[in-house]
Amino acid sequence: MNRKKNEEELRKPFIEALALHHLYRGKIEVTLKCPVRSYDDFALWYTPGVAEVCRKIAEERELSFRLTNRWNSVAVVSDGSRVLGLGNIGPEAALPVMEGKALLFRYLGGVDAFPLCVRVKHPEELVEFVATVEPSFGGINLEDIAQPACFQILEDLKKRLTIPVWHDDQQGTALVVLAGLLGALEVVGKEKEKVRVALIGAGASNIRIAHLFIKAGIKAENIVLCDSKGILHRNREDLVNHPWKWELCQVTNGVGLTGGKKEAIAGSDVLVALSTPGPGVIQPEWIRQMNRDAIVFACANPTPEIWPWEAQEAGARIVATGRSDFPNQINNSLGFPGLFRGVLSAQARAITDDMCVEAARALYHFARERNLREDYIIPRMEEWEVYIAEAKAVALKAKEDGLAQRSFTPQEIEREVAGVIERARAMVHQAMREGYIVLP
Amino acid sequence: MNRKKNEEELRKPFIEALALHHLYRGKIEVTLKCPVRSYDDFALWYTPGVAEVCRKIAEERELSFRLTNRWNSVAVVSDGSRVLGLGNIGPEAALPVMEGKALLFRYLGGVDAFPLCVRVKHPEELVEFVATVEPSFGGINLEDIAQPACFQILEDLKKRLTIPVWHDDQQGTALVVLAGLLGALEVVGKEKEKVRVALIGAGASNIRIAHLFIKAGIKAENIVLCDSKGILHRNREDLVNHPWKWELCQVTNGVGLTGGKKEAIAGSDVLVALSTPGPGVIQPEWIRQMNRDAIVFACANPTPEIWPWEAQEAGARIVATGRSDFPNQINNSLGFPGLFRGVLSAQARAITDDMCVEAARALYHFARERNLREDYIIPRMEEWEVYIAEAKAVALKAKEDGLAQRSFTPQEIEREVAGVIERARAMVHQAMREGYIVLP
Repeated sequence: MNRKKNEEELRKPFIEALALHHLYRGKIEVTLKCPVRSYDDFALWYTPGVAEVCRKIAEERELSFRLTNRWNSVAVVSDGSRVLGLGNIGPEAALPVMEGKALLFRYLGGVDAFPLCVRVKHPEELVEFVATVEPSFGGINLEDIAQPACFQILEDLKKRLTIPVWHDDQQGTALVVLAGLLGALEVVGKEKEKVRVALIGAGASNIRIAHLFIKAGIKAENIVLCDSKGILHRNREDLVNHPWKWELCQVTNGVGLTGGKKEAIAGSDVLVALSTPGPGVIQPEWIRQMNRDAIVFACANPTPEIWPWEAQEAGARIVATGRSDFPNQINNSLGFPGLFRGVLSAQARAITDDMCVEAARALYHFARERNLREDYIIPRMEEWEVYIAEAKAVALKAKEDGLAQRSFTPQEIEREVAGVIERARAMVHQAMREGYIVLP
Repeated sequence: MNRKKNEEELRKPFIEALALHHLYRGKIEVTLKCPVRSYDDFALWYTPGVAEVCRKIAEERELSFRLTNRWNSVAVVSDGSRVLGLGNIGPEAALPVMEGKALLFRYLGGVDAFPLCVRVKHPEELVEFVATVEPSFGGINLEDIAQPACFQILEDLKKRLTIPVWHDDQQGTALVVLAGLLGALEVVGKEKEKVRVALIGAGASNIRIAHLFIKAGIKAENIVLCDSKGILHRNREDLVNHPWKWELCQVTNGVGLTGGKKEAIAGSDVLVALSTPGPGVIQPEWIRQMNRDAIVFACANPTPEIWPWEAQEAGARIVATGRSDFPNQINNSLGFPGLFRGVLSAQARAITDDMCVEAARALYHFARERNLREDYIIPRMEEWEVYIAEAKAVALKAKEDGLAQRSFTPQEIEREVAGVIERARAMVHQAMREGYIVLP
């Protein structure tokens, strides 16, 4: 399954991607969703008719969710300060990723997402920017923002905005890794209450993963985080001023392990690496020190911390990466399109950790019904019905917790999200058939 | 031609618009412009392949215009402080208009426009906002922003941005009114160097119209502006702190007229009213005091300052309004889609007054070839080839003035803009045929 790839194979997607980006000059476009039967219709969509629509919303702002596309619009916001594994490359260079994200939002979740790559000097400017543009959107997806700034930005925005906001590198990754963990544990027959988990890298993703794992039933004391300076423990005085790491120093690592990556990994059942692009960041000999039936998530992009074939040779029973060209892709794309589909269709007030856990469980149940295996611990993106199941679960959880601003039955919400997703996919295929999207 | 309409007819577009906005819940959506042949393509459009595209742009920012949709993306930005004739109704209530604007940008000009309605307290915040989001767009269209703030905002942004920015209520309206004036003067057989022009309302549009008229050959001393306090002249000391009006006090109104609307209009050949929604803002008896073969532009939205049938009964030979349900629609929609199509396809550094005059001339020549008449002084929106002609003229002017960052022949640019516009229109009609856009 995890056959070794040669240099040429590994270079291929980069070369092809560049050529195709030159060819298409953009991955998304903005088109009409209402008819133009004749030019008389412009008197309805624009002046004079539209004035009546404006008047109604001026009377009651919430009507912007009924009378415009706001209900289905998400801003994909990045300052380009930590793009993929490329570091701080700036907003222009982040644009291809954010366009790709918008493409996935639309194709997989039927969400109208628009990339807003911004030039800011301080995190507060990013908060101001998003608060300023809030009236145009139904939700905010933060992306590829360096930590620790991203934590404060997310917290500040959650307080200021009346629409749901999330940081995909935190909650999105956590949701999908949790789904993969639930599947992997079932394959190896271990219980989540008993496993020891090593989280390598204490960035945006792993910090949120720790919280979501705890929420889902992993014991906090059985989780060991490791940042660039070593294992997180109660005496890491250097972290006192990093509230998000300091909080985890207090509750994780029950036995008070010290040391570095090697010590964190030894004796663990599960390794989740979300640190720096590899290969060579995780050594095979460290994997050999893990417990029997080891589960390894090596999720750095674009190159995992250790190649999957190396991890398997070192004894890992299950290996997952962030890449689509290996099995068990731990891809955020399994999370955000379905989650936001549910959030937007329910018009949820916020995105809670409980909703994320529910989304992860929906992914897990979907894969379970299709027989979990070593190389199938989580649904594949091709299994597009998974987004319907995920959206439905999220919408129903929002409703259960009193966060949904619309009312619906399980049947109604399933039909609605399925319709929106199917239409978005079908439109692309139709455009390809008709030649509006030309094949390369 | 300008048959009187009854109350019911006038209410109809408002009622119908509201019903259809409820039905469609948005007028634009974001879809894919690149193929998804299989899910393997996501390794090219997103991680890992996209990383190579990011690296290239990180090396050279300008490549964002070649490798993403930035080259064709325009932000439609409004703070909702002066929406149509409705006043300061706020960003949420402005959204239906800005979505409609994006619809027109796309359908008529093949431009991917996205509405960004923003909540700001001070004009400087709007400037900061646009400067912050600049890396995502190829151009900025400011819209429905109250004056005098809009003047400073436009000037500040022109200095700060490296992409073209314009304020449609200033340059866009001016461009189209100028086109209509050129056509109307030809119909009545008057020379632009000799006519006297009354501009009623000294807001964003008429201030820019004065400048563009002068640039196009109307004598400054033959223009008389009138704001809510009366005629602008050299002794309007109350305007010393309004630099944009004060400048015009010095150069217009050569004979030093004083008084109000009535005095400004008497003895004029052309009346351009862009003031407050009527009817009743311009009195029929004032029209009667105009010169023979009077030309009246009554352009307030949603209701003209005087009904067209009233103006004609009072002796106007040519009447134009902002409405699609009367002849001679002076609609910004004749300007911005073609102008921006040319600007984006040429990758012009800026939008100059010369480019606006050239766009107006293209509209005038287009209508001239189709026989100008009292009820046809300007092309109709249905004549969609006009946008190709306009875009071509603008692109060539940008090239001539050294502002185009791409090189092209007249044939090449015409073929390119025609292709983009035809595709955008055809996609909508195809979606209607296939049922992706359902008819009401």
